[in-house]
Amino acid sequence: MSTNTESDTADAQPATAPDVESEAESESEIDTQPEPEVETKAEPESGPNVETDTDTDGDAETDTKSESEPESEGDDDAEEIVMSPPQQFTAAIKGGAIKEFVSTLRAIVDEAKIRVGPDGIHTRAVDPANVAMYDVTLAAGAFESYDATEGVLGVNLERFEEVLKLAKKNDLVQLSFNTTSFKLVIHIDGVEFTMALIDPDSIRKEPEIPEMDLPISLTLEEAQISRGVKAADMVSDHIRFRCDEAETTVYIEAEGDTDNVSVELADDDLVALTAADGNALYSLDYVNDISKQFPKSTEITLTFGGDFPMMFEYQFSDGECDVLAMLAPRIQSD
Amino acid sequence: MSTNTESDTADAQPATAPDVESEAESESEIDTQPEPEVETKAEPESGPNVETDTDTDGDAETDTKSESEPESEGDDDAEEIVMSPPQQFTAAIKGGAIKEFVSTLRAIVDEAKIRVGPDGIHTRAVDPANVAMYDVTLAAGAFESYDATEGVLGVNLERFEEVLKLAKKNDLVQLSFNTTSFKLVIHIDGVEFTMALIDPDSIRKEPEIPEMDLPISLTLEEAQISRGVKAADMVSDHIRFRCDEAETTVYIEAEGDTDNVSVELADDDLVALTAADGNALYSLDYVNDISKQFPKSTEITLTFGGDFPMMFEYQFSDGECDVLAMLAPRIQSD
Amino acid sequence: MSTNTESDTADAQPATAPDVESEAESESEIDTQPEPEVETKAEPESGPNVETDTDTDGDAETDTKSESEPESEGDDDAEEIVMSPPQQFTAAIKGGAIKEFVSTLRAIVDEAKIRVGPDGIHTRAVDPANVAMYDVTLAAGAFESYDATEGVLGVNLERFEEVLKLAKKNDLVQLSFNTTSFKLVIHIDGVEFTMALIDPDSIRKEPEIPEMDLPISLTLEEAQISRGVKAADMVSDHIRFRCDEAETTVYIEAEGDTDNVSVELADDDLVALTAADGNALYSLDYVNDISKQFPKSTEITLTFGGDFPMMFEYQFSDGECDVLAMLAPRIQSD
Repeated sequence: MSTNTESDTADAQPATAPDVESEAESESEIDTQPEPEVETKAEPESGPNVETDTDTDGDAETDTKSESEPESEGDDDAEEIVMSPPQQFTAAIKGGAIKEFVSTLRAIVDEAKIRVGPDGIHTRAVDPANVAMYDVTLAAGAFESYDATEGVLGVNLERFEEVLKLAKKNDLVQLSFNTTSFKLVIHIDGVEFTMALIDPDSIRKEPEIPEMDLPISLTLEEAQISRGVKAADMVSDHIRFRCDEAETTVYIEAEGDTDNVSVELADDDLVALTAADGNALYSLDYVNDISKQFPKSTEITLTFGGDFPMMFEYQFSDGECDVLAMLAPRIQSD
Repeated sequence: MSTNTESDTADAQPATAPDVESEAESESEIDTQPEPEVETKAEPESGPNVETDTDTDGDAETDTKSESEPESEGDDDAEEIVMSPPQQFTAAIKGGAIKEFVSTLRAIVDEAKIRVGPDGIHTRAVDPANVAMYDVTLAAGAFESYDATEGVLGVNLERFEEVLKLAKKNDLVQLSFNTTSFKLVIHIDGVEFTMALIDPDSIRKEPEIPEMDLPISLTLEEAQISRGVKAADMVSDHIRFRCDEAETTVYIEAEGDTDNVSVELADDDLVALTAADGNALYSLDYVNDISKQFPKSTEITLTFGGDFPMMFEYQFSDGECDVLAMLAPRIQSD
Repeated sequence: MSTNTESDTADAQPATAPDVESEAESESEIDTQPEPEVETKAEPESGPNVETDTDTDGDAETDTKSESEPESEGDDDAEEIVMSPPQQFTAAIKGGAIKEFVSTLRAIVDEAKIRVGPDGIHTRAVDPANVAMYDVTLAAGAFESYDATEGVLGVNLERFEEVLKLAKKNDLVQLSFNTTSFKLVIHIDGVEFTMALIDPDSIRKEPEIPEMDLPISLTLEEAQISRGVKAADMVSDHIRFRCDEAETTVYIEAEGDTDNVSVELADDDLVALTAADGNALYSLDYVNDISKQFPKSTEITLTFGGDFPMMFEYQFSDGECDVLAMLAPRIQSD
């Protein structure tokens, strides 16, 4: 993921556990995934250039970022994280795109740090239970007009989402940060909404994404996943994704007390598949919340491995918005 | 109704009260209808060949069964009721038809014995208060493919209905009984759902339909009934059906504390009418539940008599599904 | 307001406070609006000829009543108010029009006195807190057929609205007052509904509309108001209407604890504007209830002044139905 090299960050925080873990105050679920072979980047937040990085081991098709982004040069010093508001932020965007950005994050959090910068806006957020994480980037190209310097805005997403209901899909939503009042001004079709921001320091810390070797990857239509999740939800609170390498087939499975669900995803159902033997169990509540956010008729890439987190990756707004959701596995005790 | 003759069954259980009554543990409402002139068939369940039989007295147009069904020959012995699961049951049907079958029964019960056999599937069920009964047959011709031997499946209709939500109207629903696991396997568009069955013995006994002389019969569009029921529901908990023979008119009436509703159904509103003087009162809750199940734009035949049960009869799936609902009258004490 | 002259009515009840006030039992909000310069007509109810009268000061375009209505000649004596039911009332009207009439009043009351007369039907009602008032006239021309003498019907609007759900927009609703049973008979597509009436004396007294000098008037599409009200509702319980005479602009404003909303209504947004400097605050709950009743794509005229009530005026049914809503202001104490 871009120019953050492992050696640099290892210097800054040499012997630390992953960020995710330390912040979770030993909450159980996210702790289950760091196996010995997981290399974890130890630097904390480093602004909009900290990107999704789950494909260092061959699944390179999901990496949509260039390897050399100039704005990431200050990363050598882990303390140089931008935590102040931007000097300049004025943008205009179609209602549909900004609503999708906000509602995606709303799947797991009510407030978030939105990092703005010349290239677009970016948010990474983890849910209160430390089980699910979103990393969402809305590139400058997704906006009708865009002018921003680097900075961070603490945003009440719940309120923001409510305000955006005033906008229809194709209505222009104008956003600007008032550097005097330190409020976000939202214009929608003659209505001016002035929204107070939240102190970013009061918002849960942005998690690190551990580097993991996830051997199984499949790409499919959102409708396929949604159908499987809906079926699983009828019988259980958990959902298993299982890949059979010999059959080159992925199964979505759920086991209830008396009833079972099984969805077979083979060649015809899949856009792409990197097969390996392995399976992992996830909480259906979270999978439900995440899959509800999938835009209709969109291809979703799932990446997972035996008892490892699952990565959900997709794009919207003509590829200008990248979404990565990461979900910790359930370790079966029964 | 097919080959079950009165004399046969009278021999088997000569001096008994109707099944319906004994099972209801003396609950009041259903008891109000067996007047001295009612002939009651006393045999208990006798498999899929026990059919709707309300038309022995002239309303023969509602009898859609042949008079000679070979599989009913064992009826002489009332103990020969099939209570075991089928040796073979594999069927495929459009989502719309099976959903209609299940949701019809759901109007009054959550679980039911579905009797399968070479000619199709059949269920008779009575509500917990013993006030309303459904007898529904889905003929083999309603299925896209069908192969079954005789047997009974105890089905959780609530769960089944939920699973069927995965199917759109024209989606193919594949059903098969797994004779090893004794579960019902449901395939809908790539999703395999394995549903445990219920012990049929634990499900409320299938009621007998008493033979009654119901002199009044009318056939009309479901919209006509639904409108009257909706209006009656605004003023009362009860609904009266009254026929005036001289006027050849049927009235749907409801009386509230201060307000009244009256719907006049005369020649233009009716497809067919066999008129006689008489009226009967029914619980609106039940009439509501039953009329909500009427398929849109379908002709419904109502048959009733003074303080007697009402029969609601209709078909769907191009005539391959026959529905009979029977509702006990309310006897006015005030 | 037709021929009711101030001197006549002053004779009848010389030294009284306005009707509105006396009935409110000193409830606070409506009391805030009678400023010294407000001339208040003191006569109590005087039948269908008491009309909306907010335009004595130049906004004459909203006065749709002739200045000389023959039936108002008896007004000299304030005791001659018709409180008895009509000798004759038979009318037929499209479902859409009568539903709109009833649902408009339902915004603030559950029951009302409907005054019928040769020219149409008319109701004036005030909400239980004495904050909002409606005056609605449905002219004889709005009916498909109409024949009525003067009288008053005490109507349970909640029940009436429920009954009218049986009618689609273009269904004919036939209304007639049964002078024997003293009930209202409603025919909708074959359903006859007999509805008991309420003793008009038991219904809250019809309020007087105070004469006020309201200097600001604007006419705009309902969608403009609805949007502003919806936005204001996100941040506050109150909404301010403010006019800047120099800018010839009206602002809809709401201030929350941290967030603000401002909607600017200038030339392009307005159909008409009589500008003056001034602003007034209103309860959003009431403005919401009133604006929800605005028929789609209808022009609404708002008239207000500094800390004075706001008048909302519009028409529907091709101008045959006149609606005036009056809302008392909130006096800011903080």
